[in-house]
Amino acid sequence: MCAVGTGPDDLGARVEFPTTTPEETIRRVVEFFRERGKREKLSAVGVASFGPIDLHPGSPHFGYITSTPKPGWQNTDLVGPLRRALGVPVGFDTDVNGAALAEGLWGAAQKLDSFVYVTIGTGIGGGGVVEKKLIHGALHPEMGHMNVAHDWRQDPFAGVCPFHGDCWEGLCSGPAIEKRWGKKAEELPADHPAWELEAHYLALGVMNLVSTLSPQRIILGGGVMRHQELFPLARQKTVELLKGYIQIPEITERIDEYIVPPKLGENAGVLGAIALALGC
Amino acid sequence: MCAVGTGPDDLGARVEFPTTTPEETIRRVVEFFRERGKREKLSAVGVASFGPIDLHPGSPHFGYITSTPKPGWQNTDLVGPLRRALGVPVGFDTDVNGAALAEGLWGAAQKLDSFVYVTIGTGIGGGGVVEKKLIHGALHPEMGHMNVAHDWRQDPFAGVCPFHGDCWEGLCSGPAIEKRWGKKAEELPADHPAWELEAHYLALGVMNLVSTLSPQRIILGGGVMRHQELFPLARQKTVELLKGYIQIPEITERIDEYIVPPKLGENAGVLGAIALALGC
Repeated sequence: MCAVGTGPDDLGARVEFPTTTPEETIRRVVEFFRERGKREKLSAVGVASFGPIDLHPGSPHFGYITSTPKPGWQNTDLVGPLRRALGVPVGFDTDVNGAALAEGLWGAAQKLDSFVYVTIGTGIGGGGVVEKKLIHGALHPEMGHMNVAHDWRQDPFAGVCPFHGDCWEGLCSGPAIEKRWGKKAEELPADHPAWELEAHYLALGVMNLVSTLSPQRIILGGGVMRHQELFPLARQKTVELLKGYIQIPEITERIDEYIVPPKLGENAGVLGAIALALGC
Repeated sequence: MCAVGTGPDDLGARVEFPTTTPEETIRRVVEFFRERGKREKLSAVGVASFGPIDLHPGSPHFGYITSTPKPGWQNTDLVGPLRRALGVPVGFDTDVNGAALAEGLWGAAQKLDSFVYVTIGTGIGGGGVVEKKLIHGALHPEMGHMNVAHDWRQDPFAGVCPFHGDCWEGLCSGPAIEKRWGKKAEELPADHPAWELEAHYLALGVMNLVSTLSPQRIILGGGVMRHQELFPLARQKTVELLKGYIQIPEITERIDEYIVPPKLGENAGVLGAIALALGC
């Protein structure tokens, strides 16, 4: 998905094409921006990419997608071809770090120093800001792959993560719901026990984000969270699981403003890329 | 524990007295620094405190210990009395954030932008640095209270955390070892199955720190980690649990330098306080 603009109030039409081979996909991206660059001056390009990616400025593979399971995309240089073809600086980060940045600039986390954005969909991914800086460190967060208190006696489902089985993503992503109950999430009625269990796993993950990052807000997006009834359930279960240990008004008094949906909706992806371009 | 100095190479004798009532304890701290202040000029005081504490500069309770279970210490102003009595700036943070800062300045995390310090002892606490800044956010991390994949079928022990039962601290702290096996950790022989299980829980916690914070190094200190044989075991189990998903040389090639003991040993506490004073 590509677009040209400077923010949510200045965002041109999004253009979308399928992620096929790296060569073809990058060629189409370059064509799009070359064409648009004839009409308006491009100052920078931002790329909010699926991962894992190499973000070390000194690394010979900086700007590459690295060990992804996506066929054909291992060790693919994204930044190099775009910079060479377009002649502008390229901002680069994970899709979720980009979305977190965009929610901080224009969305659900404005004016906060420290927050987390998590998407719960075909997988679970998370990006975060600590003291106004995106979390990178050795790589970048892979929040979906944390382990959580899976009680096999209550829930004998083995999980769907091809790496870890019952990590957070393995138990709580869209495919986990579908495999556990034999039906897609959107086909499950609102009173199905799936939702209570889903909220429980959401809360376990949220509890670990609170314990490790102490964010000022947690934004939960992605396809699964379009089931809005999950928000009150997940909030309630988070408060229950924390057992009063974390005494902060964000949790004890304002949980409705603590665990929230994103505000940028379908534009979170391209706005994330634009936020990364603005940071160049 | 109190000391005067500017770092590990300039650290006067530590003075230690028991934590009794807030009044008596703060009075003895003030006396110690007043007495020392007659001989050398104090520029600032740092306090690396047990928590939870209030670190919000604008809060009416900034500088207080807040909801601690320690009798008599709830809602105790630490920073106010010290600043009034000593007339110097007071740096204030959690003991583990202080220790993390000190390990970054002088110890096992020098020159790193992003790392975590965890102490595994009578409880589990952790502090962290992301992009050179201590993690604060809504409060401060409470890493011991994350949940981990406790498999009740393999380990029916309910945990010792008074709040959460089988959180990381509940399963993996010194008191957890003692209660699970009916013996203090130091009385268990090196070939006791306790160590394998302990390393497993250490690795589950480490895996969650890697997933959420992506640190460049994880320092494990505290009384339990004096059992040095835990380090190779915990490293091996961390690599096994990650299942090759996180492909970074820190983990795939240099795990011995990734999960390490602290370097400041018994001085980590006072050096943490000095690091906080230096930041004033």
